[in-house]
Amino acid sequence: MVRVTVWNEFRHEREDEAAREQYPDGIHEAIAGFLEERGFDTRTATLDEPEHGLTEEVLDETDVLTWWGHIAHDEVEDEIVDRVQERVLEGMGLLVLHSGHYSKIFKRLMGTSCSLKWREDEERERLWVVEPSHPIAAGIDEYIELPDSEMYGERFDIPAPDTLVFTSWFEGGEVFRSGCCFHRGAGKVFYFRPGHETYPIYRQPVIQQVLANAVEWAAPTGGPDPEFGNREPLEPLD
Amino acid sequence: MVRVTVWNEFRHEREDEAAREQYPDGIHEAIAGFLEERGFDTRTATLDEPEHGLTEEVLDETDVLTWWGHIAHDEVEDEIVDRVQERVLEGMGLLVLHSGHYSKIFKRLMGTSCSLKWREDEERERLWVVEPSHPIAAGIDEYIELPDSEMYGERFDIPAPDTLVFTSWFEGGEVFRSGCCFHRGAGKVFYFRPGHETYPIYRQPVIQQVLANAVEWAAPTGGPDPEFGNREPLEPLD
Amino acid sequence: MVRVTVWNEFRHEREDEAAREQYPDGIHEAIAGFLEERGFDTRTATLDEPEHGLTEEVLDETDVLTWWGHIAHDEVEDEIVDRVQERVLEGMGLLVLHSGHYSKIFKRLMGTSCSLKWREDEERERLWVVEPSHPIAAGIDEYIELPDSEMYGERFDIPAPDTLVFTSWFEGGEVFRSGCCFHRGAGKVFYFRPGHETYPIYRQPVIQQVLANAVEWAAPTGGPDPEFGNREPLEPLD
Amino acid sequence: MVRVTVWNEFRHEREDEAAREQYPDGIHEAIAGFLEERGFDTRTATLDEPEHGLTEEVLDETDVLTWWGHIAHDEVEDEIVDRVQERVLEGMGLLVLHSGHYSKIFKRLMGTSCSLKWREDEERERLWVVEPSHPIAAGIDEYIELPDSEMYGERFDIPAPDTLVFTSWFEGGEVFRSGCCFHRGAGKVFYFRPGHETYPIYRQPVIQQVLANAVEWAAPTGGPDPEFGNREPLEPLD
Repeated sequence: MVRVTVWNEFRHEREDEAAREQYPDGIHEAIAGFLEERGFDTRTATLDEPEHGLTEEVLDETDVLTWWGHIAHDEVEDEIVDRVQERVLEGMGLLVLHSGHYSKIFKRLMGTSCSLKWREDEERERLWVVEPSHPIAAGIDEYIELPDSEMYGERFDIPAPDTLVFTSWFEGGEVFRSGCCFHRGAGKVFYFRPGHETYPIYRQPVIQQVLANAVEWAAPTGGPDPEFGNREPLEPLD
Repeated sequence: MVRVTVWNEFRHEREDEAAREQYPDGIHEAIAGFLEERGFDTRTATLDEPEHGLTEEVLDETDVLTWWGHIAHDEVEDEIVDRVQERVLEGMGLLVLHSGHYSKIFKRLMGTSCSLKWREDEERERLWVVEPSHPIAAGIDEYIELPDSEMYGERFDIPAPDTLVFTSWFEGGEVFRSGCCFHRGAGKVFYFRPGHETYPIYRQPVIQQVLANAVEWAAPTGGPDPEFGNREPLEPLD
Repeated sequence: MVRVTVWNEFRHEREDEAAREQYPDGIHEAIAGFLEERGFDTRTATLDEPEHGLTEEVLDETDVLTWWGHIAHDEVEDEIVDRVQERVLEGMGLLVLHSGHYSKIFKRLMGTSCSLKWREDEERERLWVVEPSHPIAAGIDEYIELPDSEMYGERFDIPAPDTLVFTSWFEGGEVFRSGCCFHRGAGKVFYFRPGHETYPIYRQPVIQQVLANAVEWAAPTGGPDPEFGNREPLEPLD
Repeated sequence: MVRVTVWNEFRHEREDEAAREQYPDGIHEAIAGFLEERGFDTRTATLDEPEHGLTEEVLDETDVLTWWGHIAHDEVEDEIVDRVQERVLEGMGLLVLHSGHYSKIFKRLMGTSCSLKWREDEERERLWVVEPSHPIAAGIDEYIELPDSEMYGERFDIPAPDTLVFTSWFEGGEVFRSGCCFHRGAGKVFYFRPGHETYPIYRQPVIQQVLANAVEWAAPTGGPDPEFGNREPLEPLD
């Protein structure tokens, strides 16, 4: 059973009325709830816990970490970012959600600014599947329609994803690479665009399906643990 | 349970003494045997059967097709190649083995010559895992060593794979992209280099592991079935 | 000086009033004209010439071939398709324009159906640059806006491009990977979506700029000419 | 004329006899020398200069930066790493040479450990061209042979390159992705493996040719300068 730790900044839902209405127990509880229902072994962790809830012990028991943050990216300690990065490179899966594009951990793993265009205007978004054979598209229709969405637009300053699964259309005239797979070290990273704190995005079954698929995809698959450093030759040298 | 059809040209094993010794019942029976043991629902098909054993009915019940051919690529009917290509584009997985690089179906799906350098001199090959997070590398060490192998060397005239999982080192001085993943249509294709008809390659557990992993990876994942052609707008036009 | 052969089906412009109005001398003359102005050595070739104008001699003197076709893809002889494919694999650049997505040569080089959604409704298209560092985006703004465009929508059944340069937004709600780079053999292929026969697409300086950039990018760069087949070892074998 | 700044740690050549013999004026002078001869406008910068020689003014006049470092990666100030990263994301080309794989700037841009296997045993290396159509392979034979090379072996912990141009074979039994292209932000990055401080690697014309090709490829191409942040809609919203 894949073990998922659902991390959340958990500030909007305590400070903003609109966010609290959508997610009274926090976005993390909403995400952990539907993942639990879909058969994953879940726990949560939030920014204001000691070590942001991401102790070595918690990470030892985490196959896939999901990350939601927005207004407090800077409060995440560099030491914890180092730790999460190291775990990803060792094989832990990472799902970066929505405004998490600007988190320290995502920028660290991408090596770029991860900047984008944005607009908060409750406009229509349509996420088109561009790689239907990818397991993250399992059980999804040709597109996902979100009636009231925040806009994120290109240029999205990321490295070209190893696989591009979704591309978004926005009512206001923009496009966005909204479902992006990356291999980093021995780990897998999936960025998924939808997820604004005041819209009921995570209550939609189709969004839940994508995230459940992504957890399955990102879970470690038991590949080799590469050895680095000085090595003796495997063949006789001249 | 993933349903695998193991296709084999089945000529060497009936005509050449050395091949018959290695694979008295044919390479297809060897491959089907270990896949069956590993929990797949397998059947076989060979060149000299009607429709090469690849009738519409057989393909209807095939999730993943494996392909071994060498000296009779030209005897494969174009109509059957069309049929297999169509099935791959609709979602069937395809594993192309060793000398299958020159099969009509692989060249068709790649769009290139699929040419390479080769040498049959029983030399050492070492397949290095270059993408340890890929599920096809599950349970594999950092490298696979084959003591007596046929050499295939770069330039391998294929499109750059979507994911490169293995790269081979050869005693004689060459390298080769020996484990290559491709998405084509709604299907997945994996090319795997080892597998000469007179070497006991398919008896090695590590090779069997790679192929079992590849079957799992290539099996259809139930993504959307895209619609093509003329479409009404989803949004009002000016 | 890069030598470009501009190939055109040249049927619409002789048969349809609207197309003739836009391109009285044919789309090929329009394209060859602006490429000539931008410093390329151009010639044209059309379907109804002997060998479709693509004799061995013409191809010997062609660095980059551009391809426009629509209603007569099936009339292109397979022998000529073989010849063009071979030339691309040997290093000739190929620009496939608009409805050329369904040409025999593009389907041959892609290995997929190259199907897509389409609609002819004079709607707005906006091509966003998603890889600004690519030379094909030189001198282009963040997006190209086309007021009256034919819609092509995903799923576009192609292999994931080696580099995705443009993604289109359409007024009617679709997106499309509209500027796609591929390496095939020793050659480079660029697919560019805009270019309907009854819209003045090829008169727009920004479209001309993209095509000129693409010609530069696709021109052969003098890399090695790989040798294939049986090879002696470069190192002593055990 | 492309303006190149050749950066060097410049420690080995002042401290080690063997390195001084190979590169009496420093590796930077050797590289700048042959690039100058090949028509580039070059300057040099080294670790022990103020701001490591990479002032804002120098970077303002730099199209492509080359980076050689080995034993003093940690002495590079984070502020300068920030500055160089920002410049790359804005469009400056970067060539990372040999042991520069472990530099702060390369690890920063990759997001991974950039670890590898290594061995210093004067063994034979053969770099095979695997993508002959890439401009970095211009004028190069099918492979480059280096009689006395340091070994770098897979697993090389980098993101899969956007284009893999060279793969190395080593006498001792390893392979390595030794010529790797990456797009990062609006900039291009090329990693090239050869270049040990006590071997005459940079005196070899073929190595000089690869680096000159890479400078041309990495030079900014004048694409759009993306705007980020809050944007008004381009289309009327409901």
